[in-house]
Amino acid sequence: MELRYKVWLESDGETVFGDGLSRLLSGIAQQGSISRAAFSMKLSYREAWGRIKRAEESLGVKLLIKQVGGEEGGGARLTPEAERLLDQYRKFRTEVEAAMAKIFNDNFEAH
Amino acid sequence: MELRYKVWLESDGETVFGDGLSRLLSGIAQQGSISRAAFSMKLSYREAWGRIKRAEESLGVKLLIKQVGGEEGGGARLTPEAERLLDQYRKFRTEVEAAMAKIFNDNFEAH
Repeated sequence: MELRYKVWLESDGETVFGDGLSRLLSGIAQQGSISRAAFSMKLSYREAWGRIKRAEESLGVKLLIKQVGGEEGGGARLTPEAERLLDQYRKFRTEVEAAMAKIFNDNFEAH
Repeated sequence: MELRYKVWLESDGETVFGDGLSRLLSGIAQQGSISRAAFSMKLSYREAWGRIKRAEESLGVKLLIKQVGGEEGGGARLTPEAERLLDQYRKFRTEVEAAMAKIFNDNFEAH
């Protein structure tokens, strides 16, 4: 048997943070662009931007600073709040992964 | 923010155990009847029995002993293997719940 799980964070019944948003924000931080980050996740720009807007509304914080103009017609980077949330979520996620693997192993694999 | 998660066990890409089956088997153990356990979960007999058959096939073990006849036209009880799996899953689930709550609290609530 294999362990499967999904984990996410909600506020007032709305998903506000999860693995999808975490990947998207990581991609934007790395690539400096919503459309490139969206492309590498097989999302349209519109879908990616929609997710970010919904998360911003639920969380009540700005996640992105959009940069207009420049060499490639603008880009985006994370706000300090988004960086902090992303770090927090990654640490949480790493701890969840380790705990889940251990609990599964203790109960189903060890004997 | 609130923590949300789902956890289940798969074998060869098929769900073999999860909260639904755990509730269903607990209900059968308590009520001695598939149809009564199904009713209290708002499942049809057919859905409940289908879930159990699929789990039996994936796990390669019998989960139920059907009893024919008697006062109410038969009933069902768990096999020793089903009882063992259910105990194992409940212990696993209790540990998951405690670990998830602690990790969430440590990362998102404590400060």
